[in-house]
This record gives sequence, C-alpha cells and structure tokens, in this order.
Amino acid sequence: MRPSGRQPNQMRPVTIETGFARHAEGSALIRVGGTEVLCVASVENRVPPFLRGKGTGWVTAEYGMLPRATHTRGNREAAKGKQSGRTQEIQRLIGRSLRSVVDLAALGEMSITLDCDVLNADGGTRCASITGAWVALRLALGQLVAKNVLTHMPLRGQVAAVSCGLTKAGPVLDLDYEEDSAAAADTNFVLTADRRIVEIQGTAEESPFTEDAFNELFALARTGVSVLFDAQTLAVETAENR
Amino acid sequence: MRPSGRQPNQMRPVTIETGFARHAEGSALIRVGGTEVLCVASVENRVPPFLRGKGTGWVTAEYGMLPRATHTRGNREAAKGKQSGRTQEIQRLIGRSLRSVVDLAALGEMSITLDCDVLNADGGTRCASITGAWVALRLALGQLVAKNVLTHMPLRGQVAAVSCGLTKAGPVLDLDYEEDSAAAADTNFVLTADRRIVEIQGTAEESPFTEDAFNELFALARTGVSVLFDAQTLAVETAENR
Amino acid sequence: MRPSGRQPNQMRPVTIETGFARHAEGSALIRVGGTEVLCVASVENRVPPFLRGKGTGWVTAEYGMLPRATHTRGNREAAKGKQSGRTQEIQRLIGRSLRSVVDLAALGEMSITLDCDVLNADGGTRCASITGAWVALRLALGQLVAKNVLTHMPLRGQVAAVSCGLTKAGPVLDLDYEEDSAAAADTNFVLTADRRIVEIQGTAEESPFTEDAFNELFALARTGVSVLFDAQTLAVETAENR
Amino acid sequence: MRPSGRQPNQMRPVTIETGFARHAEGSALIRVGGTEVLCVASVENRVPPFLRGKGTGWVTAEYGMLPRATHTRGNREAAKGKQSGRTQEIQRLIGRSLRSVVDLAALGEMSITLDCDVLNADGGTRCASITGAWVALRLALGQLVAKNVLTHMPLRGQVAAVSCGLTKAGPVLDLDYEEDSAAAADTNFVLTADRRIVEIQGTAEESPFTEDAFNELFALARTGVSVLFDAQTLAVETAENR
Amino acid sequence: MRPSGRQPNQMRPVTIETGFARHAEGSALIRVGGTEVLCVASVENRVPPFLRGKGTGWVTAEYGMLPRATHTRGNREAAKGKQSGRTQEIQRLIGRSLRSVVDLAALGEMSITLDCDVLNADGGTRCASITGAWVALRLALGQLVAKNVLTHMPLRGQVAAVSCGLTKAGPVLDLDYEEDSAAAADTNFVLTADRRIVEIQGTAEESPFTEDAFNELFALARTGVSVLFDAQTLAVETAENR
Amino acid sequence: MRPSGRQPNQMRPVTIETGFARHAEGSALIRVGGTEVLCVASVENRVPPFLRGKGTGWVTAEYGMLPRATHTRGNREAAKGKQSGRTQEIQRLIGRSLRSVVDLAALGEMSITLDCDVLNADGGTRCASITGAWVALRLALGQLVAKNVLTHMPLRGQVAAVSCGLTKAGPVLDLDYEEDSAAAADTNFVLTADRRIVEIQGTAEESPFTEDAFNELFALARTGVSVLFDAQTLAVETAENR
Repeated sequence: MRPSGRQPNQMRPVTIETGFARHAEGSALIRVGGTEVLCVASVENRVPPFLRGKGTGWVTAEYGMLPRATHTRGNREAAKGKQSGRTQEIQRLIGRSLRSVVDLAALGEMSITLDCDVLNADGGTRCASITGAWVALRLALGQLVAKNVLTHMPLRGQVAAVSCGLTKAGPVLDLDYEEDSAAAADTNFVLTADRRIVEIQGTAEESPFTEDAFNELFALARTGVSVLFDAQTLAVETAENR
Repeated sequence: MRPSGRQPNQMRPVTIETGFARHAEGSALIRVGGTEVLCVASVENRVPPFLRGKGTGWVTAEYGMLPRATHTRGNREAAKGKQSGRTQEIQRLIGRSLRSVVDLAALGEMSITLDCDVLNADGGTRCASITGAWVALRLALGQLVAKNVLTHMPLRGQVAAVSCGLTKAGPVLDLDYEEDSAAAADTNFVLTADRRIVEIQGTAEESPFTEDAFNELFALARTGVSVLFDAQTLAVETAENR
Repeated sequence: MRPSGRQPNQMRPVTIETGFARHAEGSALIRVGGTEVLCVASVENRVPPFLRGKGTGWVTAEYGMLPRATHTRGNREAAKGKQSGRTQEIQRLIGRSLRSVVDLAALGEMSITLDCDVLNADGGTRCASITGAWVALRLALGQLVAKNVLTHMPLRGQVAAVSCGLTKAGPVLDLDYEEDSAAAADTNFVLTADRRIVEIQGTAEESPFTEDAFNELFALARTGVSVLFDAQTLAVETAENR
Repeated sequence: MRPSGRQPNQMRPVTIETGFARHAEGSALIRVGGTEVLCVASVENRVPPFLRGKGTGWVTAEYGMLPRATHTRGNREAAKGKQSGRTQEIQRLIGRSLRSVVDLAALGEMSITLDCDVLNADGGTRCASITGAWVALRLALGQLVAKNVLTHMPLRGQVAAVSCGLTKAGPVLDLDYEEDSAAAADTNFVLTADRRIVEIQGTAEESPFTEDAFNELFALARTGVSVLFDAQTLAVETAENR
Repeated sequence: MRPSGRQPNQMRPVTIETGFARHAEGSALIRVGGTEVLCVASVENRVPPFLRGKGTGWVTAEYGMLPRATHTRGNREAAKGKQSGRTQEIQRLIGRSLRSVVDLAALGEMSITLDCDVLNADGGTRCASITGAWVALRLALGQLVAKNVLTHMPLRGQVAAVSCGLTKAGPVLDLDYEEDSAAAADTNFVLTADRRIVEIQGTAEESPFTEDAFNELFALARTGVSVLFDAQTLAVETAENR
Repeated sequence: MRPSGRQPNQMRPVTIETGFARHAEGSALIRVGGTEVLCVASVENRVPPFLRGKGTGWVTAEYGMLPRATHTRGNREAAKGKQSGRTQEIQRLIGRSLRSVVDLAALGEMSITLDCDVLNADGGTRCASITGAWVALRLALGQLVAKNVLTHMPLRGQVAAVSCGLTKAGPVLDLDYEEDSAAAADTNFVLTADRRIVEIQGTAEESPFTEDAFNELFALARTGVSVLFDAQTLAVETAENR
C-alpha cells in the first residue's frame, strides 16, 4: 500500500493555472498533489556573452524554494549568499530539458528565462518545474508569434517530467515526499509527447538496482507523462482562448 | 487625478487569505491592489546565539522578491550571492515592527521567523509585508496557545503599515508603483490599532518637504491603517473559526 | 537626569575640522561629544552605469566603522566579506540625504562619493556622518566652482541631522551611546536650514509611542540642528578663507 | 568512422597507478586515453554534523580541474570564489555513486573524502573520477582493515562508470572530448560488477532520442565497464601485493 | 636629488600620538611625513580555536586603508566583499613582526589584535603600521601589568620597520610614494633595538639587483630604525607619565 | 644532524619533467625531494584591463595545493570560496619573480599565466614553484619564437629559488617539512644565474636573528640555486631537442 492509498501507476491530481505572474510574458502555477511551483517565463532582447552576434537565442532556468515550502524552515539561499549544489543541479536540468525542444536559431537573439519557484513542496518539485515551465515557455512564445516578433512558433516538441521509484510498495509512479525520502531508488524521466527521451536521471539511494526494475520504472513514467501532456495542453488552450 | 482614478484618501482593495503555506504555523497571502505578498511564520525551538540562556524569545523577518514580480525581470539574489541593501533594510524594518508588539519574555526561548516573499509587485511591498506578517504571526501564536505551549497570547498590539506620498495629485494614500516612482516624497507609517507609532520613515525623493505636508500624510495614514486593521481582524477570525 | 548631566535640549560640544584627508577634494572631521567621524568627498569624472549618457551627475555615500571605534572590538567588515545590513542602511540614508539638496543636472556627468568612517563612536554616528558629509561635499563643490569646472554651486540647501529619543529622563536631544542603548524610542531627523524635512526615521525600540511624544522629539530636533548649521557654516567659512 | 579510429564498442587504453599521493590512505592516478585524474582517499575520525552520534560513517567527494587541464585555460574556481554548477553536480554524483556500495554503519563514525582532481582532460572526466575513486576508497578501506581499525571490509560492491553517446559514427562507447562536444546525446552509466545500476544520467544535447537508442548505449556501457572492472582489480591487487 | 630634497639617509619627520582611540587598551597615531596610520590594540580574553586550552596567548593584526587615503579613491574592501592579496600580505607581516618579540606563553590565554588603519598614505604604510603597532601593543601590555592581570611585561624586544630602495638618486632611506612608485628595488626591514632581524622583504621591481646594493640598503635601514626607536620610546614614556 | 641525514649545504634530489600538461604551451613537473609541483604556462592574446592598449605584455601566477598534498587533508579553497592569505602571498611572489626577468614590452599584448599546483608537499613549495615556473615560461616563450609570433626570446635572465633556515642542526639549505616547521628562522632567496637578487624574504619564526646568521643563509642559498639552474637548463635542453 502506498501511504496516500494511490495505485502504483496513479498520478496525484494535476492542475495548471496560467497568468498568475501579472507582469510576465508567460506563467504557470502548477500543482501536483501538495507540490506547488510558480513557473514564469521572461523574454529579454539580449543573449549571454558567449552567444552575442551569433544570431541564435537562449533558454535558461533558475530554481528556488521559499524557505517554508517544506516541513521545517530551510535557510534562504539569498541570505546564505549562495545557491546549493542541489539548486544548481535542478536549474541546469530544467534549462537543458526545455532547450532540447526549442529551435534556438529560429528564436533569434533573444533569451527566455524560466523562473521556477516552489511555493509548497511535497516531492517531485523538479519534475513539476519542468512540466510547468514548458507551459510558461509555450505561452511566452505564443505571445511573440501573436505580436509578429516571431514568424512561427520555434518549438519542436512538448516536454514533461515525472519521478518514479522503488518503494516498499514496489515500483510506483509520481513519488510524494514521504515515498521519496524512503525510496530505494528514484528516477526522473523527462520525456516528449512523441515518445522520445530528453533526460533520464536514475539514482540508487541505498543500494544498486536491476535493469528489470529500471524498465518497470520507465513504463510507469510513460503512463504518468501522458496525464501531464493533457494538463499542459488544456492549460495552453484555456489561456489562449481567453 | 490619480493614475488609478482613486480618491486621495482611498486605499486599493485589500484581501488577506490564510493557510496558503501548508507546512507553516501561520501564513497570510496579502493582496493590496496588484501587490501580492506571501507572509509565512515559522516557529523554532531555539533562539539566536546572543539570546541563548536568557529565557527570552525572538521575532525576525526575511524579505524576498521573485525575479519577475516586477515589470522587468530582476536578478535573483540567491544567484548574485547577496541580498541588496534595499532587501536588508526592508527585512530589518519588518522584524523591528513586529517585535515592538510581542512580549518576547512571555514567548520563552523560541523564535519566530516571518518570511515575506513578494509574488507580484505594484508598490507598497514593505507595508503589505508588515500588515500580512502580523496576521501570520498572530495565527502562529494562536496555535501555540491552542496547543498549550504558551499559556497566553504574548501579543501586546496590532500593527499595520501604509505608505503615503506627495504626488502631482497632492498628498495621497497607498501609493501604487506608478505613483511611487514619481512621488516627491514617500513616507511609510507603521502604526498600532491603539493609535501609537511603531515606525515612521519619511523620505524626500527629490527635494525636502514641509512639516505641514508631513502632517497631511500622517492623517492619511491614520485613515488607511484602519482599513488594514479590519482586514487583519477578519482574516484572523475566519482562520480561527474554520 | 541625563547620564551626562546635560539639559534635555542640550547638544554635546560640536567641532568640525576640515582638510584632514590630504588628497581629497573636500573633507571634514566632525566631533559630536565622543563621536568622531571622518567625512571625505571624492570627485570622479564618471557616473554609475544607469546614468551614463544622461548628462546628469550622482552623489553617493559609503559608511564604515573602525573595528575598535566601540567599547568592544567589532569584526572588520572587509575581513567578514560583507557589509552588515546596518551599514548598508546607514550609507543609503547618507546618500539620499545629500542628494536631496544637490542639483544633479547642474553637476553634469560627475559623481561625488562621501566616505564616512567612524574613528570613535559614542552614539549618533549616522547623524554626525550626514552633518559632516555636507561640509565635505560643500568644500568639494566649492573647489569645482573655483576651478571653473562648474559655473555655479549646484547646492540647493544645507542639511544636518540629529537624533532625539525617549529616555528615562524624558524626551531628550542628541543621544549618546548610553542613552541610545536604553531609549524606548529613537528618532533621527534630517532637516534643512530652511526648516524643511529631508528624512525622518522614528523607531520604537521596545514599545510603540504616541504622536505627542513624536512631536516633542521633533521640536527638540529643530533646536539641535540650528547648532549644527552654525558649526557647518563656521567650518566652511574657515576653510575657504584660509 | 570515429575521429580516433576506434571501433564503436572500443574503450581507450586504461591504466590505474596507485600510491601517487604520498600522504594519503589511498590514491589512484587513472588514465583513460588522454584523460588523467588523480583520485585520493582521506580518512578522518569525524563525521559531518548531521551524522554525529549516530554511529554511522560517511563517504563524500570533491572534484576539481587544474586550470589548464583543457585546451584553453579556464578560470581557477578558488580564485573566482565559487565552484561552478557543473563541479557541484559532478562531485555530488561521485559521492552518491561510492556511497551506494559502502556499508556506512560498518564504517563507524569515520568519514572518507575522495578528492578527484583532473590533471589532463579529454572527455569522460566524471566517469574516470568514479572509476579511480573506487580504487582509492578500496585501498583506504583495506588499510583500515589491515590496521584492525575495521574488522571487515565494509564494501558491498565494485563500481565503475563510462559514458556512451550518439555521434555521427552512431552509438559509441567512451566518448573523447571531440566526440563529446558534438554528440547528439550523452549518457553516463555508473554500474556494479554484479550487473546492477547505481546511476544513469542520459541527456539529449540537441534533440530528444529514442528508447531504442538508449538501449544500444546501455549495451555498449556493459561492455565498457567490464574493462574498467578488470583495470580496478589489477590495480588493487598490485598495490596490496607490493 | 630626492623629490623631497631629503638626504639619502634622511627620514621624514616622525611623530607618534597615543590615546587617539578612546575605547582601546592602547593606541598610537603614527605620522611619517604624509603617511598617517592609526594603530589600535584590543585585548580579548580568548584565543583562536587552534590555541584553545594550550595556556598560551596570541597576537595578530588587521590592516586597512580608508578609500581616499590615496591620490585617487580606491574601492572599499568591505564593499567589494574581500580583502586584496596586498592587504592580507601586509597584515600577516605586521602580525608576525610583533609576535616575534612577545612571550606568548607569558601572555596566557588572551589575544591582542592590532588594527592598523591608514588615514593618509604617502608611501611606507606597512612599515609605519609595524612601528606604530608596537607602541599600541606596548601600552596595552603596560595596562595589563598595571592592573595586575599580568605579573610582568611579556615583551622581549622593541621592533620598528623602515623601507629603503634603489631610486634615481641612488640608495635612499624611507621612500615616499613618489620614490616608491619609481624605485628599481624596494626593501622593507623589520629590525629590533638590539640589532637583530625580524623580517626582511627585498623585491626587485623592474630588474634584479646586486648583493652590494642590498647591503647598502641594509646600512641605511639601521640608521632609519634608530630614529623610530627613539620616537617609540618617547611616545610610551609620555603616555605612561600622563 | 638533519632529520634526513643530509649535509647542511646539501639539496634534496631535483628533477624537472616537461610536457606533463598536454594542452599547455609549456609545463614542468618539478620534484625537490618529496615536494612535487606541476607548473604550467598558458599564453593568451590579451592583457589585464590596466595594460590594454599600452603595447606591453603581462606575466602572472596562480598557486594551489591539492587538498591531500599534505599530511592531513586541508580544505579545498574552491569549496571554501576564497583563497587564503598564504596562497595569495605565494602567487604574488611567483608572479613578481618571473616578471623581473621578462622584457614585457618585447612580449607585446599577450599574457602568460603560470599555474603552480602542488601535488605532493614536503616543504619548499613556493621555491619549487618559482623554479619550475621558470622552465614552463621558458618553454612557452620558446614556442612563440619557434612559431615566429615573437622575433626573439624576451627573457633577460634565469631565476630559481631556495629556502634556507636556522634549525637545531644550524644553518641549513633546502628545508624539508620537518625542518621548516621547527626552524627558528626561514629565508627564501629568489636569485638569478648572474648572481643578482630578485627577492629575499627572511622571517624570524620565533625570535629575531642576527645579521651574521642571515649572511650564512645567503651563502647556502648561492650553493643551492646553482644546482637548480643546472636542472632547469637540462630540462629545457631535453625538451627542445626532443
């Protein structure tokens, strides 16, 4: 039995609310069970130094967690004066995942920053960030097309992410915090709607696991992301038909 | 005429929603017009080094702004590796304001941190933070009393804050961003429900102003905080009768 | 009775010695009782990035305290690797206060930095810094006029600052360290010679105070700054007639 | 054709030299083609704060690269004042990988730090670090057993790592720098000698890839690590029979 | 001819004023020509961690320069967030120089910090710091003896420092800024009153120099420090007979 | 007797291996007894900001020590976020020493960075760094001449360094770690092959020493560097005749 009573292949409820950040070109407040992440896309007419003059764009991400998004208050990274290794690892993953489906050359010399800030945490914040950030990015790009800044949508695919893990209840989909902190292995799958792989990060927490177990987790992830793709599509359609 | 069409002595709409931060002992999401701040109280069973063993408690605050809470994206302080002077000044003000109405000795060796994070900014974020933080603090203390950790509520007053300024439309109450950025003078009043002063910060932005002007701003502030005290009272009552 | 035996409305002895910093365009070593601050104005032919090409100048301030300016040695901020929130708050206040009386457009694309370094501290260091920095600034501007870099003095007023507070001896003027550390409320008034307000920072240290008490403090401040304006005037006249 | 003329499933030459760091409890200088990493194990009689008094040990890793290990000189992280996100990501991976095969409870309250410093870089430095660090760790633990500090070897498995990628020459084993910088996908496999998975990190560099491609890369990795396990075994035997 | 018209073996005027820092256990404001350094000794009843429980004391130094002590304003190290390599080198030198004449065991578990802050700079600030710091240290120790905290003066010698250099005018004593910035070689001699060597730092600025030249500089230094020893002695006597 | 059984005027075995850093313009792995430093020269077509447009070049150095180069593991400076005072002092010394024999104007607007990283430490690492860095620099410059980037070798001399000290065995040459940590005085001599002085740093560790003792150390250093000059010459000849 899972602590939440869910079936092994059952996602938590997913909702994506757009427009929360009033000043931003695109934003999505994603809720996956008790995890809540505000994903915000900001468009700027400049690129990082290493790309200047190359006629190509850039997509990057930053990740943060409010100090009391978690059970006990964590230190504020701005006050400590540096981002943790975990934060940097996660924001690099989000950035890479979204770049893999953007035609950077078609974007031109613009950059889009995806800020993913966790308001409430209950496991799976990096996967929720990727899933929500895709919606924020999609809306920002849609606005650029609508304003004729871009002649076409420079997006080559739809990306979502989910974590699966080996728990006492066997291989399960979409770990919550309680499951995550006790899992023997935890794997994040970043996948596309056309069934390709963007990123796989599988980690044995306690002891190594078998290839068969890995394949079971992969199959669960396939199930999970299909729910997420639907939620993304619904959010974009709702936002653009407003 | 004010840009928003408001009367000189008219506040923007104020709402305070409690319970947004699920893990926290108290939280208040305050909206004052387009400004939206999540204020979260965290209780911890320890005090800073300078108070250890003195039998007294501590109340402090931290302030942050999401990178795209504003019209153009600002740099994330955690990524820059330090908090700006403005951030530090604001969080020191919030902490002082709340400590002035808490009986720290009655609190015992516990500390309460108020995290005020701006989700959307449209002027007056420090005042909204103080007003919302009082609600979060009040709820956290109420929980400690309800759980018999404290025998009585160690709160000696109710605090709220509002900014007033000298604009082209004359002295006005509750500046929004457009007014604030063009005001000749800007004064923040942190006041108590029993009509006392916690903190006054009056600043000439462009050129010094007269004592008469200052007195007009003070009178407007008295009007404004009475609205805020009502919103605070309503939020606390609603939360505790749930 | 005040610890020093002073009358409630009595300032400590004030002296301002100019020319202490030999390389600087203007400098003033101000002593207010046991508080001693070296205020130094440096003129540079450039402005911060946000002002470049706008044809306007800038005035800013930095504040520091020698490690043993106080009763017990404090850590050196350069060694700790960051300026405290208190330091940043004070230097922002000094900069704002002086900018309020400078015609930045008339200054042209130059910047003037006021370095205020506390050599000995006995309360009121931020007020002494503002009062001394005005003299250093005035001398530096005078030199620019004398050298025909500027056609006229771009100064619109004379600024000085004093702290008043509620102590056991009632409302008193010009708190020394012993009074300051025990005061129930402490208010800094930055005022101009033509009786206008540049900045007011009133803070309840322990419990909120009444509007009547605030008005008494304000009246004391009026008395105090008149002494400071005389000391400033004397220092400038002495320096320029040398 | 691969740039180096290697077969798709062909590793570069691998050598592991032990004892290079004279003061350390264990050390391995691993060379995989032109990549050269010095892996050093340091044993200390204390554990990080979060483990104190729990009777269990800790294994962690730090990673660095000499400024001119690469084609063009990179900035020294100590001079920049912080470790890059890439560095932190890699050292977290090395630490996790080794902890997965150590019986931390059997280690007792000791910690072992694996310093992996890249002397020359030609692709695959994180994989070489893991492979070499296992040898350094094994030797340090062997010394603790030999000195009767530990009653038995607290190691539950043998770990090695290799990167595989999709290049113009198709799926290939053990990418060098030239291949790595142009690969369409790059996957690091951290595997055990008993054919289990410690960590998989698969990343689409340019565009997402298929599950079939992923499976081909996995099969190549199986081939590669068997070479590495032999090199590790040889190095340990040689060192311990000296 | 030297720019100042001084003879090759002529020191600039030297004065040492004590008691400038009112709260400190010992202080000396030393002036060597246009160079002015405030040297302050602070006694604390604790030692750094590496000495705790060893029954021995510690003497250390910190060095700083006010931003406008020099011809053009330098950045404030506290604002930059770190001390320069030059600052660290100088403060390490001052600390070592004074420790060489203190009987640290006789001091007991106390530490004395010498803060040397340059108020005006015209060459030779590190030498003036050492010379002035010895006086501040001597006075602080004298006070500890007078208060019976120490039974005898734990000082084994008298230390002073002077710089000599190879200039266009040949080898000269006590370089000022103009000479220092153009010297072919610059050597700092830290010597004791009983003619022993504490530290020698000789540096070729432009091209290496001969051993004969070095010996000439050494002879000049002997002349210079005798003047400094007299100034130190006078300052201590004056202070203690007050 | 010296701990190593060496004669007072006997160097440890010295070897210099070139070409260790495969990507660098010049490199030397120097071993002096148990001390081992990798010295690497990197040529870049730019100069620091203060030299831009002046037509002259720059030579600088950075120094580091692997965490376990020493008996007990030291903290990694990149992880601590700053370089120690000792590190900065050493790298400034290495840079100055090499600049003293380079014709920077003849180098043109190029800079050469010498990275000196200590792989194993047994005393004398700064001297070994200087000695090895000269070889790396010489090889890099030779390559620039060979490629006709430079018309002639812009090197005016040959530099090497050795430490001498006063130990229980009297004045000795080339201190190892055991001697260094117990020496009463320690002097580093940076000398040229034509018998001139580049830098002398003599430090009394415990108590001041006499001028006679200093002269004895200087004589020993003359003996020592002649060995080092031979080793440098041999390394350069071997490398260039390969």
